[in-house]
Amino acid sequence: MVTIYDVAAKAGVGMKTVSRVLNNEAHVRPAMKDRVMKAIDELGYRPNLAARQLAASRSFLITFILSDVFSSYQTSMLVAASTECRLRNYHLVVEVRDQDETAERLVERVTANLRPDGIMLVPPLCNDAAIVRAIESKGTRLVRVASTLSGYGDIVPVRDTDVSHEMVAHIAATGKSRIALIAPPFDKAAASERVTGYRSALADARLPYRADYVVKGDFTFASGKAAAEQLLALPEPPDAIFATNDAMALGAMAAARQIGLDIPRDIAIAGFDDSPGSRTMYPPLTTVRQPIPGMARNAISVLLGHADALEELVPELIIRGSTQPGAAAEVHGEDM
Amino acid sequence: MVTIYDVAAKAGVGMKTVSRVLNNEAHVRPAMKDRVMKAIDELGYRPNLAARQLAASRSFLITFILSDVFSSYQTSMLVAASTECRLRNYHLVVEVRDQDETAERLVERVTANLRPDGIMLVPPLCNDAAIVRAIESKGTRLVRVASTLSGYGDIVPVRDTDVSHEMVAHIAATGKSRIALIAPPFDKAAASERVTGYRSALADARLPYRADYVVKGDFTFASGKAAAEQLLALPEPPDAIFATNDAMALGAMAAARQIGLDIPRDIAIAGFDDSPGSRTMYPPLTTVRQPIPGMARNAISVLLGHADALEELVPELIIRGSTQPGAAAEVHGEDM
Repeated sequence: MVTIYDVAAKAGVGMKTVSRVLNNEAHVRPAMKDRVMKAIDELGYRPNLAARQLAASRSFLITFILSDVFSSYQTSMLVAASTECRLRNYHLVVEVRDQDETAERLVERVTANLRPDGIMLVPPLCNDAAIVRAIESKGTRLVRVASTLSGYGDIVPVRDTDVSHEMVAHIAATGKSRIALIAPPFDKAAASERVTGYRSALADARLPYRADYVVKGDFTFASGKAAAEQLLALPEPPDAIFATNDAMALGAMAAARQIGLDIPRDIAIAGFDDSPGSRTMYPPLTTVRQPIPGMARNAISVLLGHADALEELVPELIIRGSTQPGAAAEVHGEDM
Repeated sequence: MVTIYDVAAKAGVGMKTVSRVLNNEAHVRPAMKDRVMKAIDELGYRPNLAARQLAASRSFLITFILSDVFSSYQTSMLVAASTECRLRNYHLVVEVRDQDETAERLVERVTANLRPDGIMLVPPLCNDAAIVRAIESKGTRLVRVASTLSGYGDIVPVRDTDVSHEMVAHIAATGKSRIALIAPPFDKAAASERVTGYRSALADARLPYRADYVVKGDFTFASGKAAAEQLLALPEPPDAIFATNDAMALGAMAAARQIGLDIPRDIAIAGFDDSPGSRTMYPPLTTVRQPIPGMARNAISVLLGHADALEELVPELIIRGSTQPGAAAEVHGEDM
């Protein structure tokens, strides 16, 4: 195996010079650089990662910080990001944020040793202002997917308004007229896009907007179940619920089942995410499939400075049995 | 910032010598080594990862190879492994196996550049003989969790027999007498432990073992649904189904729901894994919680040569509404 020492010997220079050349440092005379590069070529020297890192002043590592609150959205994004890194000869390091850890310590430990070329954050951590500020103070490149927070780092946006409108229009077209919304926490703007789509579709279908039909959740199953219990206890309960993520929609399904309602006859329920759980419910859940592989590709492109390669991202409405009786038998075979 | 060049200058030796000392290479005279170490101490030199790697002949990286077929079991294991690495100042690199890639190319790309100190595999990839052989040929340390395949690498075993017995005894105690099994593919021994527990519990409860009540699946939702359809079409259908993982149990729930059966009155259903989906069903699924954090700790301990720190791993029966009518209202609040 050819080492950096062989390169130095062949070029007739010191190790320090080879290292400077590999690092693209200043103060190397062009003639010296040529000699080293020629030796590298002739010997067929292939640096390992440590050497590549020294050579390129890059680590070829991207760090993905994961919230320790499980969500299939997060893990799907992680898998897509790892796949994307592979195609670019990068590697993805996964760090789990410990609830007890300050943002500063988290960022210190993920950057200090590894010196990743970039950090990727997805919801919910991409909206954590303290983490974003701590990364900014280190100067590490940052990309945030679907973030609703302004500040440091590039943001890969996702447009949810149109598909939310389409969802509510679909539910109205099945004959439902009392369509409720389980909204995200109101301080998140992703919320607004989904709420905006909901409101515009109601208007298009000439259905009234009722404040008592909008209950906010926090994207958890438990919050969706509680919101649906509140909606179903109204004097005039809704006949459909659009939850702005799948976890809350599954909570709404549990609430409906618990009081013996038939889905979708008595109450249609829809979610947002196309999570594995949405496919393994009976009836399977009508939802929105987010363009996760494209989102990951865009995020990695941004981190590596290839912003010209960005794709347009279009979420897709997936109609299943929880809103469409005819689709009830169509249980998808994908694994959970 | 102190660099390796400063260390060389201070010790009055060449870079190559410092590097040899940091690498713990042979052929360094003790006096020389002392001089370099003294310079490192006096300068307070703290190598970055690349330098640490050179210094320790270790990468401080563990690679986790993930199947691209999503399972919550796999991603839970990944999160636990990353947490465990953090506590030991290691970092976890995630590589996704591409279906189109040979085992040799996969292992080449995950080892060649990064040179991880070890590789961790969990089901299903830990039972892929070609991947195991390819890792063996590289000589990289390997740990395989719950693997049923013999061969290269250390195996972190999990004992499923007792808890499977306990599960079937619980179902029998609720008054069910025709308890069917959706078994794993028979060539997997983890299968056998669960099948062994099932058979011994039937014998204890003085229930007959019926070959037509045992149908194998492949751990997917679709296979569980198909197996349950076959069982429910028998002239004397079962009144309970124990599926050997949650994905198959959710498939069985969908099959039962599709023909209007009440769970658990008409048919009790139980799984194995305590996946997020098991908690968001209605009724929530009775299942087995695997000791995933302990499994990950043991796996990383084995990789780092701390086999004395291994924990005893005990899976836990989690009784919920899909087998116990009284438990039906107890929907767990954990997020999906």
